[in-house]
Amino acid sequence: MIRDELARHRFPEGRISLHPASEVVGMGEKPSVALRTKKDSSLRVGANLVRDGVVDAFVSAGNTGALMATAKFVLKTLPGIDRPAIASLLPRVGGQTLMLDLGANVDCTADHLCQFALMGNVYAREVLGVTAPRVGLLNIGQEEMKGNGVVREAGERFRQLIPDYVGNVEGTDICFGDVDVIVCDGFVGNVSLKSIEGVAQMLALSLKESFAHSWLTKLGYLAARPALRRFRARVDHRKYNGAMLLGLNGVVVKSHGSADAFAFSHAIQVAIELATRRVNEKIRSEVAKLNGAGNS
Amino acid sequence: MIRDELARHRFPEGRISLHPASEVVGMGEKPSVALRTKKDSSLRVGANLVRDGVVDAFVSAGNTGALMATAKFVLKTLPGIDRPAIASLLPRVGGQTLMLDLGANVDCTADHLCQFALMGNVYAREVLGVTAPRVGLLNIGQEEMKGNGVVREAGERFRQLIPDYVGNVEGTDICFGDVDVIVCDGFVGNVSLKSIEGVAQMLALSLKESFAHSWLTKLGYLAARPALRRFRARVDHRKYNGAMLLGLNGVVVKSHGSADAFAFSHAIQVAIELATRRVNEKIRSEVAKLNGAGNS
Repeated sequence: MIRDELARHRFPEGRISLHPASEVVGMGEKPSVALRTKKDSSLRVGANLVRDGVVDAFVSAGNTGALMATAKFVLKTLPGIDRPAIASLLPRVGGQTLMLDLGANVDCTADHLCQFALMGNVYAREVLGVTAPRVGLLNIGQEEMKGNGVVREAGERFRQLIPDYVGNVEGTDICFGDVDVIVCDGFVGNVSLKSIEGVAQMLALSLKESFAHSWLTKLGYLAARPALRRFRARVDHRKYNGAMLLGLNGVVVKSHGSADAFAFSHAIQVAIELATRRVNEKIRSEVAKLNGAGNS
Repeated sequence: MIRDELARHRFPEGRISLHPASEVVGMGEKPSVALRTKKDSSLRVGANLVRDGVVDAFVSAGNTGALMATAKFVLKTLPGIDRPAIASLLPRVGGQTLMLDLGANVDCTADHLCQFALMGNVYAREVLGVTAPRVGLLNIGQEEMKGNGVVREAGERFRQLIPDYVGNVEGTDICFGDVDVIVCDGFVGNVSLKSIEGVAQMLALSLKESFAHSWLTKLGYLAARPALRRFRARVDHRKYNGAMLLGLNGVVVKSHGSADAFAFSHAIQVAIELATRRVNEKIRSEVAKLNGAGNS
């Protein structure tokens, strides 16, 4: 069936190969159980292909926790990185923000956050092409004294180790600020990301309903279509599909489970960029530099 | 000058009185310093008036941290409430959600979260008129095993103590869910609230720019005005101005510093409702019931 579907398209010679995977990891399945028992799931097969150098990157729309656990088990983390983080680009006025961690690590130490900041810095330089990426630490106020113990300790560490660290940033700064990288623990990052998704869905629905309200507003819709199409294209969340599992010894990208072809193509693009820009190698050398400096 | 301004309006007899306050607490000032040194600030004078029963409620647009510290010092917390929480209504598809804590407490125990849930339940019943308010615990997934230690412990406690507890909710559920009360610690709540504000500002700007793009889209704007006006009125954030300092022995409400008259009137309305519905008395008796049940 997959072969039939593929036959309907044209691909560059030798770029497509099929790798069977006989098991399925359910969306509600516990990552540790999936890791132990589902050794022929697509998650595992994909991670193995990355490990063995058969492919340069792996994109999956499967269970996030199981993907992370499997990828970490198979690929291991880069030297000097204790924990991989889930990172994603988010739309921001006049640009994009890389935010991490978005849910891989609910409890983080200042060291973990520092590693995330470093990975974010490398990504922004290598993929976004920002010469001196501005890195912010997500907190509840700009003053240094704000936040909990871990965040305050991370702030001190960032000031010493992270180039172009701008200090604390707030939730508002994710979409309405001017930093390139925002660092937070996975609990805060996940809640924040999903809060953004929720209000965006609410506003989209409310806009739609406002135009559907009466014949007058419906007429207005017809005239407003060019502007609304423009608006939708600018804020299309599908362009931000593709969360990276940064810090692994290999490129793994997670697509939304509900992604359509357009959204999925963006996740693939994210994977291609991570692989072609050799982001992992650069993270590895930055971390080595940092550790060298710390020991001298 | 204030008298001149007041003379231009008509108020019910004897409802307006002036209380001088000679000191100013700056927005960047440390709460503990303000509390110790600014004994004639409006924050302190207002809290004193509540304590002395001269007024039924106090609305301030001042420094949030200093307001909380001052109000807590002057009014104390309700019996059985360890820490006051900042609570606010947020717009949600088809209704409103009360969310707390939004920034008063960066580190919370499961007990604190449980007290917040109880206060939220009382508010939703007494002010929103919801017979059986659905209470959710903000987490990074719906499964019970998700989250950090505090949240998991809080979940267990909620299941025993909070009526109509629906379990974990996610960031998406704040504006796009179906719970009446969402409980979280002040760090997560603050970041989440501000993330929502930031993306809403970005989307509003993007919509405006899409209509300003060309003569065609500008023409469309004219026709779309009725719908856009309707949309703006529905999602007007000024209607959600007025964050409550719940758990104090007195009614204190915080307005946005940038509030206009319309927004400020909503903050006053929040204070009036807390006072007339006797929310604090009801919180007090609910907590007493709970503690009685716990000890029996």
